[in-house]
Amino acid sequence: MTEHLVVVGGDAAGMSAASQARRRRGPAELRITAFERGGHTSYSACGIPYWVGGEVAAATELIARTPEQHRARGIDLHLHTEVTELDPVARRVRSRDLATGAERWTDYDQLVLATGAEPVRPPWARGEVPGVHAVHTLPDGAALLDRLGALPGTARAVVVGGGYIGVELAEALLRRGHPVTLVHRTPEPMPGLDPELGRLIRRGMTEAGIEVVPGAEARELLRGADGRVRAVRSTAGEHPADLVVLGLGVRPRTALARAAGLPLGEHGGLLTDDRMRVLGADGEPVPGLWAGGDCVTVHHRVSGRPAYVPLGTHANKHGLVIGSNLGGEPAAFPGVVGTAITRFRHLEIARTGLNEREATAAGLDWTSATIESTVHAGYYPDAERMTVKLLAERGGGRLLGLQIVGGTGSAKRIDVAAVALAAGLTVGELVFQDLAYAPPFSPVWDPVLVAARKVAGRMGVGGTGVGGTGAGGTDEGRRP
Amino acid sequence: MTEHLVVVGGDAAGMSAASQARRRRGPAELRITAFERGGHTSYSACGIPYWVGGEVAAATELIARTPEQHRARGIDLHLHTEVTELDPVARRVRSRDLATGAERWTDYDQLVLATGAEPVRPPWARGEVPGVHAVHTLPDGAALLDRLGALPGTARAVVVGGGYIGVELAEALLRRGHPVTLVHRTPEPMPGLDPELGRLIRRGMTEAGIEVVPGAEARELLRGADGRVRAVRSTAGEHPADLVVLGLGVRPRTALARAAGLPLGEHGGLLTDDRMRVLGADGEPVPGLWAGGDCVTVHHRVSGRPAYVPLGTHANKHGLVIGSNLGGEPAAFPGVVGTAITRFRHLEIARTGLNEREATAAGLDWTSATIESTVHAGYYPDAERMTVKLLAERGGGRLLGLQIVGGTGSAKRIDVAAVALAAGLTVGELVFQDLAYAPPFSPVWDPVLVAARKVAGRMGVGGTGVGGTGAGGTDEGRRP
Repeated sequence: MTEHLVVVGGDAAGMSAASQARRRRGPAELRITAFERGGHTSYSACGIPYWVGGEVAAATELIARTPEQHRARGIDLHLHTEVTELDPVARRVRSRDLATGAERWTDYDQLVLATGAEPVRPPWARGEVPGVHAVHTLPDGAALLDRLGALPGTARAVVVGGGYIGVELAEALLRRGHPVTLVHRTPEPMPGLDPELGRLIRRGMTEAGIEVVPGAEARELLRGADGRVRAVRSTAGEHPADLVVLGLGVRPRTALARAAGLPLGEHGGLLTDDRMRVLGADGEPVPGLWAGGDCVTVHHRVSGRPAYVPLGTHANKHGLVIGSNLGGEPAAFPGVVGTAITRFRHLEIARTGLNEREATAAGLDWTSATIESTVHAGYYPDAERMTVKLLAERGGGRLLGLQIVGGTGSAKRIDVAAVALAAGLTVGELVFQDLAYAPPFSPVWDPVLVAARKVAGRMGVGGTGVGGTGAGGTDEGRRP
Repeated sequence: MTEHLVVVGGDAAGMSAASQARRRRGPAELRITAFERGGHTSYSACGIPYWVGGEVAAATELIARTPEQHRARGIDLHLHTEVTELDPVARRVRSRDLATGAERWTDYDQLVLATGAEPVRPPWARGEVPGVHAVHTLPDGAALLDRLGALPGTARAVVVGGGYIGVELAEALLRRGHPVTLVHRTPEPMPGLDPELGRLIRRGMTEAGIEVVPGAEARELLRGADGRVRAVRSTAGEHPADLVVLGLGVRPRTALARAAGLPLGEHGGLLTDDRMRVLGADGEPVPGLWAGGDCVTVHHRVSGRPAYVPLGTHANKHGLVIGSNLGGEPAAFPGVVGTAITRFRHLEIARTGLNEREATAAGLDWTSATIESTVHAGYYPDAERMTVKLLAERGGGRLLGLQIVGGTGSAKRIDVAAVALAAGLTVGELVFQDLAYAPPFSPVWDPVLVAARKVAGRMGVGGTGVGGTGAGGTDEGRRP
C-alpha cells in the first residue's frame, strides 16, 4: 500500500526529509506532497548576508535544489501554498493557494512539520514600514537589495541587534559603502560569546568604521515629513538612518502547531523525541507526526536542557533523521552542543558549548581561562593572533565550552571542542589530543590545547593535571 | 634533600621536561643538569624547510628558548657535550665535552633520555659526501643553505624520499628557483596517505614543475671527475643532480640506551609506560629513568599497537608528562592517533588514524569512502576543492582513519577526526557532530561529515545508519 508523506515547509529540514525518504522508498511505496509558502526550496538562508554584501552575485547561487529538481524526484511540490490548519487526529492538513485563495484538505499518513522560524520584530518595527527590513528569506534579501539600489551610496544604515545576523549584515552594508551604525542591547556585540571576547569583535567593527552603540535598546522609529525613516531612537539617543535592518534573531514559526493543540517548549519550539517525532500533550509521540529545523526545540548535550538553536546545519540533520526513519532505517538526533561561527571581515568568531552566562544558568560550577596565541607557528609569516577562552566544570574537569576570536584559520578549530564536548572529554584529556601540527598550520601546542592546559594545570584533574601554560595566559575566570 | 635531575638532549622533550619540573620544584628541591650535543636548545626542527625555502628569514626565529633562557631558570646546561655512557644501576652518565674531549661522570637521581632521532641514510649516502644533505638539525639547515648559496640558481636538486620532509624540502628548493626532481619508492608521494590521495599530491607537484619519479629506489651516487655529485642513479634511471637532499625519514637515536642494556621496541625506540618511565628488560620501569620524544616508541590508540611517530607535538607532550611526574603531579601520555599535516604550496595534506595499509596490518576489517566537496560553501567565492577519505571498521562502524587533500582551510579539519578517534566514535556518531557552519567556513554538511555519512549510510550501524551522500562520492574502498 502506498503511504502518503506530506511535508509542510520546503527548506532544509522538510526537503531533506523528503529527499532522504525518497532515496529509500520509491514512488510506488511512498507518495510525497510538499507545501511551501514561498517560491523557493532548499536554499541557504545563511548565505543571504553575503548576497546582500555582493560577495555572492545572485540569489540563484544560494539555491541548493530547485523546485524542478525536487519534482523530478517524484515530489509533488506546491509553491506559494500555505498550510493553514492541521488536524493530527484525522491526519489531514488544510492548505491555501496564496495566489487563488483556493483551499483544500489533504490526508496524510506521515506529516513533517518544517515551518521554520520568523524574525523577531519589536513593537516599534511591526508592520510594513518602508525602509525597515528584516532579512530572513530570499524575498527579504531581494527587497533589501532593491531598497539599497534606490538609495544613494551615502545612505546611512542602522542595524539593530548585535548577534550573528546583525554583525553579518553590518559587514554587508559596510562592504557596499554605507555608513553603518550597530545598535545592540548587550555590553558587547555577539552575546553568544563572553564580553571579554565580544570586546575584540567590537574593536574590529569600530576599526572598520562601524559606529557601535552597545548597551542600547532601540525604542522608536522616527520618520520624516515624507513618511520615510529618518532615525532610530534608542535608550542611547537618536541614530540617523535612511535604512533600518533588524537583526534581532528569530523565533519558531509554530502558529499552525499551536492551533492544533500541540505543546511548545520554553523557547516556543515544537517538542520532539530524538527520532524527531513530535510529542503531544501527554509527552508521547503523536502518530505520524514529525518535526525538524528552526521550528523545534533541541536537546543541548552539554547543559542537558532544551535549547533553541535555529541553524541550517541542525535542520539538515533533522531532515536526514526524519527521512531515514520514514525510509525504514532507524536514526536518532543526539542533540546539539551549541556550535556557531561567523566572521567580521578578517576577524573570525566561533563558540561552542556553554558560555559563562549559560553555564551559570545551567547550575554548573565552572572555571575558565583565556589565552592568546597565534593561528600558526609564531615564526611562520603572517602569524595572526588568536584568543581562546575555555570553560570547564570544577570537580571533574569536564569541558563545558570554548570561544575563539582571531585571524584567518582560527575559528573552525572550534570543531575540536565540539567533538570533545559531545564525547564528554575532560580538559585533562583534551590536553593530550593528537592535533595536527606543522608550522604553517599551528604552533606546536595548538591554541585550543594551550587553553585546556591552562585550566587543567590549575585544576589538577583526571590524573593528567598538567601545570603551567605554553603561552601567555591573560586572565582567569571564576564563577561569580 | 635536593634531588638531581639530569637531562640528555636539549630539544623539545628534554627541555620541556626540565622546564615543567622546574615550574613545580625550585632549585633548592631540584637540581637540573642538561647535556646537549649541539649548540642549540628547544628549536623547531619542523620549521627548517621553511627556513631553507626563505619563508623564515633566520634560524634564530626557530628557537623557542635559548640556552641563556634555560640557564636563567636554573638549569645547568652543557652545550656541545655528548653523553657517551649510561649506567642505570649506579645511576650515572658519562659525558664528553666535544670541544676539549674531556670526560666526566655525573650522578643522577632522575634521568631523562631525550636523545631524539637521526636521519635514515641508505648505504650509498653514508659518510660525508659534498653535495649530499640530510636536513634534520639547525646546522644541517645552515649547511644546506651554504651549499645553495655557492651553487648557481640553475643547479639541479634531487630529493630522495617522498614523505613529509621530502615534499617540504622539494617545495623549499623549488621556491628558491631550482629545478627539482623527487625520487621516491612508493607509487605516489606521501605514503602516509593512500595512493588515491597521493595521486592528487603528485599532480600538484608535477603542475608546479617538479619532476616526480615514483616507484623508484635510489641506488647510487654518481660523481664527476672533480669529485662533485653529478647524478643519482635509481631503479628508474639516472637523475642529474648538483645537489642531493635526503628525505628518507628518521630513526630513534638509541645507541646510548642500547649499550646500557635497555630493550628497544620493534621500531627501535625506547619502551616506556604511559608515565614515560623507561621499561627495562623485565618489563618493569627502571628506577629513575624517563624517556620521551623522537627516541621512544609510542602507543597507537587506534591500532592498539606500538608505533614510531617522531613529531615535535608528541615530544612536547612527553616532556610535559615527564616534568609533571617529576614535579609531583601524576600525568600520563595516552598515546597517539597518528595525526600529521603538511602542505605543498597551496595544497594542504593531512591524515590521522590508520590508512588502508595500516588498518590491514593491524588485522582490522575495514571499509572506506572517498568524497569530494569544497572547503566552504560552494557559492561562496574561491570555494576550493577538498577530498576526504574515511576508513571505518566493519561491524561496529568505529572510525579508523581520515585523510584530507585540498585547498586552503581544508587540512586542519583532520583534528575533528583526531578527537573522534581518541574518543572511539563510530561513523554513525560522527555524522551528527555539531561542527561549525557558515558559508565562508564550510558547506552546510562539513566534508568530514559527508565522508562519515557515506560510510554510515552503507553500513547502517549504530542506530544512526543514514543513507545517501550530500556530495558526489567518488568511489568505495573495500578491504582487499
